[in-house]
Amino acid sequence: MGATLVLLRHGESEWNALNLSTGWVDVDLTEKGRDEAVNGGKLILEAGVLPDVLHTSLLRRAINTAHIALGTADRHWIPVRRDWRLNERHYGALQGRNKKDTLQTFGEEQFNLWRRSYDVPPPPLADDSEFSQVGDPRYAGIEVPKTECLKDVVDRLIPYWEGAIVPDLRAGKTVLVTAHGNSLRALVKHLDGISDADIAALNIPTAQPLVYRLDDDFRPTVAGGEYLDPEAAAAAAAAVANQGK
Amino acid sequence: MGATLVLLRHGESEWNALNLSTGWVDVDLTEKGRDEAVNGGKLILEAGVLPDVLHTSLLRRAINTAHIALGTADRHWIPVRRDWRLNERHYGALQGRNKKDTLQTFGEEQFNLWRRSYDVPPPPLADDSEFSQVGDPRYAGIEVPKTECLKDVVDRLIPYWEGAIVPDLRAGKTVLVTAHGNSLRALVKHLDGISDADIAALNIPTAQPLVYRLDDDFRPTVAGGEYLDPEAAAAAAAAVANQGK
Repeated sequence: MGATLVLLRHGESEWNALNLSTGWVDVDLTEKGRDEAVNGGKLILEAGVLPDVLHTSLLRRAINTAHIALGTADRHWIPVRRDWRLNERHYGALQGRNKKDTLQTFGEEQFNLWRRSYDVPPPPLADDSEFSQVGDPRYAGIEVPKTECLKDVVDRLIPYWEGAIVPDLRAGKTVLVTAHGNSLRALVKHLDGISDADIAALNIPTAQPLVYRLDDDFRPTVAGGEYLDPEAAAAAAAAVANQGK
Repeated sequence: MGATLVLLRHGESEWNALNLSTGWVDVDLTEKGRDEAVNGGKLILEAGVLPDVLHTSLLRRAINTAHIALGTADRHWIPVRRDWRLNERHYGALQGRNKKDTLQTFGEEQFNLWRRSYDVPPPPLADDSEFSQVGDPRYAGIEVPKTECLKDVVDRLIPYWEGAIVPDLRAGKTVLVTAHGNSLRALVKHLDGISDADIAALNIPTAQPLVYRLDDDFRPTVAGGEYLDPEAAAAAAAAVANQGK
């Protein structure tokens, strides 16, 4: 018997709306983001893909998206695990900067390298920056990154996938992972065996439930999984691809 | 080194507002209840009694109160444990009934016996009642009660206190328990060693953080604990005492 994994990227955040790079900065959802989360919960409820357990990052926009979506799907009572390994990619010195300004200052080539290359991180964030998470009590016991490329996210995410998510899937649970554009890209890269080059073109839309039916080896039975609302997901992914433009 | 326990009863629910007995029926907070939860979170933040872990019931009004209060206190990211043993007392056949109607139908003596006696449960709820939780997936694996007296709540709560909450306290964590009028009365009865008779007069106000500093045996260093806002808590407890009148 296979297992079911549901991926859900958080809805629009306050900094998405302002076109700022966010990373580990803990901003809240906008009203639109909350509406998106309600819609995501409705899709989950209507499809009957009811999560038995939630895994989420330590960031408010993912925690709140999960809370709203699960409340809508009448699954607010399921067990929760939170872990920093599901956090968004740390955007280094770009955190708190306007994406359009970054694009204009550094040029499109450099911008796209930081945004979509697999192994080129942005410049490191200074520890004394107002946008640094050094000293934040939720990260006590770990070394807070100064910047991350997608490869760094893959490297820190996979131990959590194998050590915390797979055991729940193995137990027959339907698992909801509510996280971020890049932590979910990292997970999808691993699941679908996407190359370092090809992952650049993959965009995950906000608050669109993406369902993977997995085989006994926890590999997808359908490559790329299946969005519960494929048309809306395609339109939203196209919008993500144009960010910063 | 002692441990710190924070108790928080959920804010006003939709059925509190309608004066209906609720028990295990899973109703949401009112707008007033959400405002109360924000206030509770502010008190926790201002006092600096910051929870390291949350324990809550499986009911939406407690889950949402905790979510709002912790979000306000910037502790939305702490680990969560949910358990049915923290649920409100099951009110049996009174679930879904207007408290004033119950008072008028059965008389003040019977009403108070069901409401405040230690060991007299209301009549059992029929399994096919619209207000029964039999068959609810969140209670898979347990026998859903048909009714409970406060003694029943104590009996099911104490194993959770000893098996799940005390270990967190022993690990030095500040523990937030967000639950219900009667599951918290049961816990306070145990903590403060209140007699079966005297517990009748104890009322816990909604969304008022009650802080217990515990000694090495997990007994209160101050009997009854300390409300972070004693005046508001006293006024709110008096209001609870007059319910149904």
